[in-house]
Amino acid sequence: MDIQNFKAVADRYKVIFFDAYGVLKNSMGVLDGIEQTFHYLMEREIDYYIVTNDASRGPKALAQAYIDEGLEMVSQDKIISSGMLATEYLRLKVRSGTVAYLGTPKSAHYLQELGLHTLSIADLDLTDTDDVNALVFLDDEGFDWNHDINKIVNLLRLRNIPCVVANTDKSYPVSANEVSIAIGSIADMVEQISGRTFIKFGKPDAQMFIFAYDRIQAAMKVGKQHILMVGDTLFTDIIGGNKFGIDTLLVLSGNTLKSSVDEQIHLTGIVPNYICDSAVID
Amino acid sequence: MDIQNFKAVADRYKVIFFDAYGVLKNSMGVLDGIEQTFHYLMEREIDYYIVTNDASRGPKALAQAYIDEGLEMVSQDKIISSGMLATEYLRLKVRSGTVAYLGTPKSAHYLQELGLHTLSIADLDLTDTDDVNALVFLDDEGFDWNHDINKIVNLLRLRNIPCVVANTDKSYPVSANEVSIAIGSIADMVEQISGRTFIKFGKPDAQMFIFAYDRIQAAMKVGKQHILMVGDTLFTDIIGGNKFGIDTLLVLSGNTLKSSVDEQIHLTGIVPNYICDSAVID
Amino acid sequence: MDIQNFKAVADRYKVIFFDAYGVLKNSMGVLDGIEQTFHYLMEREIDYYIVTNDASRGPKALAQAYIDEGLEMVSQDKIISSGMLATEYLRLKVRSGTVAYLGTPKSAHYLQELGLHTLSIADLDLTDTDDVNALVFLDDEGFDWNHDINKIVNLLRLRNIPCVVANTDKSYPVSANEVSIAIGSIADMVEQISGRTFIKFGKPDAQMFIFAYDRIQAAMKVGKQHILMVGDTLFTDIIGGNKFGIDTLLVLSGNTLKSSVDEQIHLTGIVPNYICDSAVID
Amino acid sequence: MDIQNFKAVADRYKVIFFDAYGVLKNSMGVLDGIEQTFHYLMEREIDYYIVTNDASRGPKALAQAYIDEGLEMVSQDKIISSGMLATEYLRLKVRSGTVAYLGTPKSAHYLQELGLHTLSIADLDLTDTDDVNALVFLDDEGFDWNHDINKIVNLLRLRNIPCVVANTDKSYPVSANEVSIAIGSIADMVEQISGRTFIKFGKPDAQMFIFAYDRIQAAMKVGKQHILMVGDTLFTDIIGGNKFGIDTLLVLSGNTLKSSVDEQIHLTGIVPNYICDSAVID
Repeated sequence: MDIQNFKAVADRYKVIFFDAYGVLKNSMGVLDGIEQTFHYLMEREIDYYIVTNDASRGPKALAQAYIDEGLEMVSQDKIISSGMLATEYLRLKVRSGTVAYLGTPKSAHYLQELGLHTLSIADLDLTDTDDVNALVFLDDEGFDWNHDINKIVNLLRLRNIPCVVANTDKSYPVSANEVSIAIGSIADMVEQISGRTFIKFGKPDAQMFIFAYDRIQAAMKVGKQHILMVGDTLFTDIIGGNKFGIDTLLVLSGNTLKSSVDEQIHLTGIVPNYICDSAVID
Repeated sequence: MDIQNFKAVADRYKVIFFDAYGVLKNSMGVLDGIEQTFHYLMEREIDYYIVTNDASRGPKALAQAYIDEGLEMVSQDKIISSGMLATEYLRLKVRSGTVAYLGTPKSAHYLQELGLHTLSIADLDLTDTDDVNALVFLDDEGFDWNHDINKIVNLLRLRNIPCVVANTDKSYPVSANEVSIAIGSIADMVEQISGRTFIKFGKPDAQMFIFAYDRIQAAMKVGKQHILMVGDTLFTDIIGGNKFGIDTLLVLSGNTLKSSVDEQIHLTGIVPNYICDSAVID
Repeated sequence: MDIQNFKAVADRYKVIFFDAYGVLKNSMGVLDGIEQTFHYLMEREIDYYIVTNDASRGPKALAQAYIDEGLEMVSQDKIISSGMLATEYLRLKVRSGTVAYLGTPKSAHYLQELGLHTLSIADLDLTDTDDVNALVFLDDEGFDWNHDINKIVNLLRLRNIPCVVANTDKSYPVSANEVSIAIGSIADMVEQISGRTFIKFGKPDAQMFIFAYDRIQAAMKVGKQHILMVGDTLFTDIIGGNKFGIDTLLVLSGNTLKSSVDEQIHLTGIVPNYICDSAVID
Repeated sequence: MDIQNFKAVADRYKVIFFDAYGVLKNSMGVLDGIEQTFHYLMEREIDYYIVTNDASRGPKALAQAYIDEGLEMVSQDKIISSGMLATEYLRLKVRSGTVAYLGTPKSAHYLQELGLHTLSIADLDLTDTDDVNALVFLDDEGFDWNHDINKIVNLLRLRNIPCVVANTDKSYPVSANEVSIAIGSIADMVEQISGRTFIKFGKPDAQMFIFAYDRIQAAMKVGKQHILMVGDTLFTDIIGGNKFGIDTLLVLSGNTLKSSVDEQIHLTGIVPNYICDSAVID
């Protein structure tokens, strides 16, 4: 497929959904020049949202990370994260008791703000689990894998409680050459061992897109044909956007390499409407 | 878990979503006495929708099947089917050319009504596929499996087009003792052989529930806590409703047997809020 | 990886296992010049066997197809097929009653020769299944898919019998540009719907290689380091040979294209010891 | 199915293969009275082997654990473990360089005895991996999961080397009520993330049974109809023995509970020839 100019494509839409990692930022921080993209969108009155598989922090803290790097236009109301959907689920379905979590205290902070009682898996006592009414996989950091993943497997033998995966990603980059296992992979392993069916949130699931879409509608009515999803990954951003019925644009600044993009599209049958080198406008 | 009285549970909600097969009807037609249930709901001003994995006909024809059996209150606007979502996708994303389909002429009728140009896989000529811009799996009937499923596999080698599965069910009952393979299983086989990623519509996917929810909101504002999903299958109706954040009720008049319900809930970790013998009110 | 000369590699081994399709023959018949390869091997006293996923015919009929094309050195004792393993299983484990089969009469002929009582699925009466003690998937031809695959699903609801898959291949080429769905894919679909665990025979499973190895040992003692597997498919021939502990050679005359071989090896981690254009010696 | 008397069944065979965990021992050590079983077998000249998914130690150390508990008849030559097959593979296919391993020093000891150069993943330096020619998953203990599983994922991005799973079990009991995640589950997670195809050893794979069978043949010729596999798990011992073509006996002293055995056999279609309470003869 031909490589297109990002600005020319963006001009055709009223709203743009951006994936975060590989599109707006990488392991070094936000991409050089990405603030021009946002200035351009604001100038042209094109609205924008960050639609991201992330449950390591709440939306306020996620936005702050952009603001700290000079992108003050990425405010909390522009953030749609898989962690927000997981938290919404827990609020609706787990009305009492404690939510045990895997992750850092920071990842649990957002749950606590919304009134949920949380307990780190590290502090869980397997002889006293009666009050634990849900389990949530938030982040791959903040606990001892050897000890605490085994503890979870045994918790699920004791208690038939809902298990929520707040980020379905399998791995994520931590430097130019290294990746880390994401909490989605750990959740898949535990699901396999336990035989249970977990409740999972994150692209490509349509719920992410619908959550974003509903937020737009609250502000103004925009048909799906006026929305563009910009992402770096065929299997999450592009297939998810396609299925939701919006147009999709693949950037080559992250997971998908220019050298293999045509082969990948051919093999998977996942076809974006456009391909651009990156979302940076210079 | 305890078996509850359906009427007593229904009283607590403002809207009820019903699965069709195993809940409202079976291989013999609509369940004896199910019209009482609808009369009761109308009397109590509890709204209701049929949320069904079905792409064998459009919503009008699906409603007519109830009306023909005396349930005139199941009108077209009460029907939410996976086929409607698939058609909506095709309308938004396939703006020109032909949609090849597997299924009966009746299953394609709804696509044609919405302005799509369709071609039965039986009539497809593999030497003339340039105009085929999408493939949709609608129904397991209406084509020669030996010949036409092979034709599809070869079509996908020629054309990298979106493949839409309009009903993800694996099998369905055709009599008290026999089942038929559903189009979802055929689609899974072709997906496996082709290596492509198909776009799938049907419970437990959240999109079904959101489509229904959006229709309610158009009429009146109802919070999720006032909606109940009633289904006979843990893996579609109950896990789907749970994930969407609404309450769920499992009936024992279909797929799930009383003798194994506790074991199944234990093994899968999919827990409904309530269990009832059936949705019939007598 | 570098492309090597087949003759130079073959010289280093005492026994060579050949895959059939894509290595010795294609949709047009045996490869031009492949008889030179066999003459060379005989001259150098390198023994050879055909190790093939095929249950469409017994070993005698498989050999005859080579002999008919002038390769009289491919006699019955040189053939190791997945169908032979499946038949061996049925002989050992199904000591009485009838074996129902999907396939052509020709595919069932070999079972009958070994004393098994067979019944084509086309002739099976679902009201009279007491005598059916096993089901075997032999070939994708010889039955009506619409009618008979549904019949099998219902047979398995009535009878908890062993289900044997005599060829695990997913598809096979029928002309330069077209493929057909293989019986392995149909078996996978039925296994998925029924929830049962089927007994499967075919590369990459070690049993194929062990069967061949045992046949060699009966003639002469040869260590694994002296055996080479030659195949055209990473996922069956090469990974299977590697796991069995013998050296492996990938040819580019079948399933694997020269243009993508390095990428495929990189992505899958399945690494042959050698790559050659083909097994033809000129 | 009826529960049979173990002694009466054993009498009909010349060789018995025993699974270890759940059959001969549990978390407390060897089962009370199991020595009578061995005395009986020796008296009747029925040969026996332990066929076990275990790579935590070499065969000598595995045998010693029985001898230490008074079962001196379970000598090293009676042990067939998945770790032995994995080691055999590494000896044949990795002729130079270093084998990186996950596991305890004790688990690597057997590899070293056979002349392989090993390196614990804990000691691996990702900037110096040129000499690492294989990776083997031996045991879930002996390394830091947070740090070292991530290290493996990154090793596989640097080096396209064979990855060997020396025990495919998903979990194992550590006390009457608790289980631990087995190395097979960790390997599955890494395989999923890396996209590579791993080489796996362990029941139900036929290679375990063939290895045992070959050892018998070295001593005396015994047909498959005279061999019985005794195990506690349908998905490994029973399906594996069935596929290999030998008779199978399920004991209810381990993984499979009396209360659910009939349901499990019905759901999976995996049918043992016999069921006994345990392999203990009193």
